[in-house]
Amino acid sequence: MKNKEIIFANRPTGVPTLDTFKFVDTEVPQLEDGEVLVRSLYLSVDPYLRGRMREGKSYVAPFQLGDVISNSVIGEVIESRSETYQPGDLVMGMLGWRLYNRAAAVHLVKVDPRLAPVSTALGVLGMPGLTAYFGLLDIGQPREGETVVVSGAAGAVGMTVLQIAKIKGCRVVGTAGSDEKVRYLKEELGVDAAINYKTADLRQSLKEACPKGVDVYFDNVGGEVSDTIMALLRHGARIIICGQISMYNSNEVQTGPRPNGYLLVNSALMKGFIVTDYTARFAEGIKQMAQWLSEGKLKYAESVVEGFENTPQAFIGLFTGKNLGKQIVKVAG
Amino acid sequence: MKNKEIIFANRPTGVPTLDTFKFVDTEVPQLEDGEVLVRSLYLSVDPYLRGRMREGKSYVAPFQLGDVISNSVIGEVIESRSETYQPGDLVMGMLGWRLYNRAAAVHLVKVDPRLAPVSTALGVLGMPGLTAYFGLLDIGQPREGETVVVSGAAGAVGMTVLQIAKIKGCRVVGTAGSDEKVRYLKEELGVDAAINYKTADLRQSLKEACPKGVDVYFDNVGGEVSDTIMALLRHGARIIICGQISMYNSNEVQTGPRPNGYLLVNSALMKGFIVTDYTARFAEGIKQMAQWLSEGKLKYAESVVEGFENTPQAFIGLFTGKNLGKQIVKVAG
Repeated sequence: MKNKEIIFANRPTGVPTLDTFKFVDTEVPQLEDGEVLVRSLYLSVDPYLRGRMREGKSYVAPFQLGDVISNSVIGEVIESRSETYQPGDLVMGMLGWRLYNRAAAVHLVKVDPRLAPVSTALGVLGMPGLTAYFGLLDIGQPREGETVVVSGAAGAVGMTVLQIAKIKGCRVVGTAGSDEKVRYLKEELGVDAAINYKTADLRQSLKEACPKGVDVYFDNVGGEVSDTIMALLRHGARIIICGQISMYNSNEVQTGPRPNGYLLVNSALMKGFIVTDYTARFAEGIKQMAQWLSEGKLKYAESVVEGFENTPQAFIGLFTGKNLGKQIVKVAG
Repeated sequence: MKNKEIIFANRPTGVPTLDTFKFVDTEVPQLEDGEVLVRSLYLSVDPYLRGRMREGKSYVAPFQLGDVISNSVIGEVIESRSETYQPGDLVMGMLGWRLYNRAAAVHLVKVDPRLAPVSTALGVLGMPGLTAYFGLLDIGQPREGETVVVSGAAGAVGMTVLQIAKIKGCRVVGTAGSDEKVRYLKEELGVDAAINYKTADLRQSLKEACPKGVDVYFDNVGGEVSDTIMALLRHGARIIICGQISMYNSNEVQTGPRPNGYLLVNSALMKGFIVTDYTARFAEGIKQMAQWLSEGKLKYAESVVEGFENTPQAFIGLFTGKNLGKQIVKVAG
């Protein structure tokens, strides 16, 4: 039984490349008391990891060169020196991109395969789902009849936001980067309008899609899409800054139209957040989302790449808009 | 008895000039039932009026060419067809820049000369004071020991914000545009640090003035001062967008470093507002401010220009940083 891991080998300038990562052969680790050995089943790849590849401040501590990349991983306990877990248990944790991780039992959470398919713990019932839930409801506070616009709408977070806004009785509008994604949003999720920002006249399309203006804007992308939406804000609008994927690969602070004036004349609010701001309320969020899922009110999509060796490509694909819904790497299982 | 009024004669491009305005001789108006005739004593000139000279959306409806400029005016009732007011009463209202205004009694509020000098009803006990009070306390929510930075700190709003933040136990830092203003902030108001943004190394000075970073930023000016402060935000920072005076005279949407990324990595909030968002709570604000004033905890400064004919100059001076504290035109009294 041999182990493999993916380390942060070169700091990227711009979009990460295969050179950013390096595969290393290692040993399967020995356990200490209170630890378990976890065989990776599903790895999550997420845009925010790009921020950790920068030296400057981001959400969380930056990766140092030589570090194993770490992120949400679902795995199976195959050996245990903890009373909490038995071999065969399914768990999730912030673990390394490895075939096998040792982990302290206290840093893991159990995944219940009866609740929903296991991989949803990385998506709609995991960080992306909770990000959508708390960002929209706590910061956005959408009210019935209001117009909610979501950028990056075909991603794991975006499509969840649109559906929660629909449940709350809002008019929902999404932007995405391909006709296939736009079709998915309209036909599968039943949004009121969806716009391909790469091919549409963005200004005109958004104006038509939001005839009363924009009350809530959930922003996953930043840049020009956001600039255009700022001009459509209504009085008292709320803008949730969840991600700025269009900006992540730049090493300089981006310039563009300043949003401050739009906030001023509309008494509008703009707030950034990270899902861990809401850690104390995760249980509430998961319970509600699982209920909507079981009632058929909430759908999800996954893009699955097979094979540990394809993890870097799966990550890089996030920045070229390859994924519909949650991007996952299936390692085994 | 002859009347005079100031009309909006030419839409300015850039800083307003004397040509923006035109003086017109008119008649003293006749009253109808429920109205009073008000002789102007003090006119308020405020930066936000520049926004109303634009055709686009601003806080309030834009002025049309030929309109009399209207804004807060303090005057004396000299004739009354209302039971509410007697000749000799002092009142304030949104009135025209005229020597004599007719006004419906219901649109006026009484000014009590025993509470504080009458002109404070345009400043620390009026819109600027309420703007400072609600913007800082409701949006900024400063906590003891936090660092509060105020731009445009020597203006009517800014100096009030600094003092309220001090009352709340914060470290307070102001930026202003002259050494005289900086001296006033330090020596008269006792701020912890004050910076002349025109001559200082802004980045370095702010870093030194805010060794722990910035928790609350009350922004009256926008532009480069704000850009510099964004890089110093702490986790959970609150930015109050009260004014963008550095931007008011431009006809184009200004470009600059996007603040969105800073909001994201700091889970920070940025919110615009206008004081009338808090109309229902004005009485609370005035009561508290009057109390601080009587206790000597709150000081104010006024820059007074004498003579109705000098009103345009007083307004234009706001954009060249002439005023320390509240800019007022003394018409009579």
